[in-house]
Amino acid sequence: MRVLAKELKAALGAIKSSDAAGVPDEVLVKGWVHRVRELGGISFVMVRDRSGIAQVVVEGKVDLPLESVVSIPGVVAANDKAPDGVELRASRVDVISRAAPDLPFPVNGDPTKIGLDVILDQRPLSLRNTKIRAIFSVQATIIDAFSSFLRSRGFTEMKTSKLIGSGTEGGTGLFEVDYFDTKVYLAQSPQFYKQTMVATGMERVFEVAPAYRAEKHDTPRHLNEYVSMDVEMAFIDSERDLIALEKELLSSIFEAVSSRNGDELAAWGATVPTPESVAAAPIVAHDEAIAIAAREVEKSGSSAKKAYEISPEVERLVCAWSAREHGGELVFINEFPRRHRPFYTFPIDASRTMSFDAIFRGLEITTGGRRHNEYQALLDVLPKFGLKAEDLTDYLNVFKYGCPPHGGFAIGCERLTQKILGLQNVKEASLFPRDRKRVRP
Amino acid sequence: MRVLAKELKAALGAIKSSDAAGVPDEVLVKGWVHRVRELGGISFVMVRDRSGIAQVVVEGKVDLPLESVVSIPGVVAANDKAPDGVELRASRVDVISRAAPDLPFPVNGDPTKIGLDVILDQRPLSLRNTKIRAIFSVQATIIDAFSSFLRSRGFTEMKTSKLIGSGTEGGTGLFEVDYFDTKVYLAQSPQFYKQTMVATGMERVFEVAPAYRAEKHDTPRHLNEYVSMDVEMAFIDSERDLIALEKELLSSIFEAVSSRNGDELAAWGATVPTPESVAAAPIVAHDEAIAIAAREVEKSGSSAKKAYEISPEVERLVCAWSAREHGGELVFINEFPRRHRPFYTFPIDASRTMSFDAIFRGLEITTGGRRHNEYQALLDVLPKFGLKAEDLTDYLNVFKYGCPPHGGFAIGCERLTQKILGLQNVKEASLFPRDRKRVRP
Repeated sequence: MRVLAKELKAALGAIKSSDAAGVPDEVLVKGWVHRVRELGGISFVMVRDRSGIAQVVVEGKVDLPLESVVSIPGVVAANDKAPDGVELRASRVDVISRAAPDLPFPVNGDPTKIGLDVILDQRPLSLRNTKIRAIFSVQATIIDAFSSFLRSRGFTEMKTSKLIGSGTEGGTGLFEVDYFDTKVYLAQSPQFYKQTMVATGMERVFEVAPAYRAEKHDTPRHLNEYVSMDVEMAFIDSERDLIALEKELLSSIFEAVSSRNGDELAAWGATVPTPESVAAAPIVAHDEAIAIAAREVEKSGSSAKKAYEISPEVERLVCAWSAREHGGELVFINEFPRRHRPFYTFPIDASRTMSFDAIFRGLEITTGGRRHNEYQALLDVLPKFGLKAEDLTDYLNVFKYGCPPHGGFAIGCERLTQKILGLQNVKEASLFPRDRKRVRP
Repeated sequence: MRVLAKELKAALGAIKSSDAAGVPDEVLVKGWVHRVRELGGISFVMVRDRSGIAQVVVEGKVDLPLESVVSIPGVVAANDKAPDGVELRASRVDVISRAAPDLPFPVNGDPTKIGLDVILDQRPLSLRNTKIRAIFSVQATIIDAFSSFLRSRGFTEMKTSKLIGSGTEGGTGLFEVDYFDTKVYLAQSPQFYKQTMVATGMERVFEVAPAYRAEKHDTPRHLNEYVSMDVEMAFIDSERDLIALEKELLSSIFEAVSSRNGDELAAWGATVPTPESVAAAPIVAHDEAIAIAAREVEKSGSSAKKAYEISPEVERLVCAWSAREHGGELVFINEFPRRHRPFYTFPIDASRTMSFDAIFRGLEITTGGRRHNEYQALLDVLPKFGLKAEDLTDYLNVFKYGCPPHGGFAIGCERLTQKILGLQNVKEASLFPRDRKRVRP
């Protein structure tokens, strides 16, 4: 019977408490040779499986290149010095798949000592590193917790097309696709589709899917393909309803990561914010955020220039202010100027909109807001953004035939993963990242 | 306080059982004007929200174009003739968003009387039809049940890139993307990535994501963009382990749909297979399936030609045979010839492979199999498929450095949705379907 690494301790307990006298039953450990150490005529083989790492004791020397896949029958025994206080005493070692001995870098080493380019170029091998793979266990929890929370609030999961006839915000930043005899584009977001679904009467929808930005950025915060976690809901009054929802949603995600990914958080020396600190996250208006950033710069005696819009530097400064004043790591900035937001953003007045960003640990992880829901208001606003009603017929039909007040937001899955674990670069939080120069593996 | 349509009955119960005498509290119903009927100086307004349809009684005539969004305060009252035996007696009607009166087709009508082209061309409006929208409530359950079952079995959800440097099975059937100064392709499946993740030590992975086929088919069973529900797992012996897993997985999905989507199933006159019939689904070898189909043709006295491979017609015939002989609607066909399967398929012998298809209600919903996991075996097989090792370096590294026996499968989400509900065309099961001619809405 196969036993996972993390089940060995329970297997030992079961054997100890059983009445059967005599020779204990053999169990089978299967996995990857993670590390081998020889000591006094005995080999300690650390075997990695999906649950963790088991210590296997083999008499004599072994010929096992690292990363070989093995199947090892043996007897479970207590050993205070082994992980979990338990080890497997091997009856024999069966090699299922023998690894070549020329690993291009130390797969079981400290990933911070391997360059990011090597980690990404050698992705099939670097993902074997337990600390690197831990990133994606956390990411899986994030996606599950996001979806579960929203389902519990009456949201329906949807899957929409990623091939669109034109961009939601004009034609810039789009990747073009040859589609039979025509051209289409990779969707930047499911914006129009999530609004459409809300307006059907489904009211509350979410989607977790790839999104594309053909931007030439090459920064630690940008990906050209990322996983967008989108939310949209009907019958809101303003962006404050969305911020309230996102606070609960993030709390629920943090709670799930904390309870399921203790080992992964420990490996990265990371913690998640408390529900109290998330609930207490301040909401500051756009202009106030700029002023706060200016005061922070002044205080620090820095010679940095005054900012006039929300830049990455302003995001960091506002987070630093919030951490000091409110004791948390999350800030919401709302009331962005109309000129900084897409045409579909609902206005407060001539200059401000019902929009917001969420900044977590100094990085924008969310953009959202209430949307226009009046047909005539949309017709009025389109020309100001250089758009034509005849290019947006499908979208406009959503509003022509009755649409409730609504809004939504999107969380960048890789950015949230990055900031939870304290990764230096968002690319580390993408399994197979795509940037301007990287299209493989 | 807003009350959903399906909560009205409970609200009535709460009012009846409360001690508070006198005037009952008002509640608020919000939603879309689904239908209006006038009778003896009274208007019956059916209001649709995300939970269902509420009957609202308004004194006198109303001027409410269908699909307008309304907010109606009123008092809950019993009425045996209303849905759930309960209705709202309106205090007034507030129009939140007034619909134009020129709906291009009857949104609240029987969708089988609206042509498929109208349904798909007018998607933002046709999705307001409760029976059409029901398809996507079922689909959301399928995705949730798929993911939940796999998580409970130790599978980790992953999100992989949909932009790849080359196809997994040669260059045919790929959509080309302009990617900065180079060309990439939309992924046909996460095949290489799921194998990579299994080989890292994660062992068990799944993904729900778009997949692309640039095929010129225009049939009721094809989409050029579909949602692929992918599974891959380590340490299997043969495709029979995968079939056993898929039986449990499908049972779990059917059970979830049955328990959560009773209304939607009823709307389509559909039922799901019992767990017993899924467990009893036969596994027939490829050659035997062909022979069964030939005997079915013979029996029917048809003049149809003998088939030599698994065609849609053979799939239907084998399902008909299975329904009669085994009393179920699911059949697995395994041991496909090597020439019909991709290079990475694990061979049984010179002619057969450890591969399978699942046929549900006459339609292939799954392809899967065990994969090659030996580096040398892959190097040997590539030339026979016209492939070069140097074009597959990243993929081959997965095997060079230790890879366990493994395999997996994919379920077409739209096809499963289609067959559960008995839809005529798979496009009906895609929110915004893409085919050769359709790239909008």
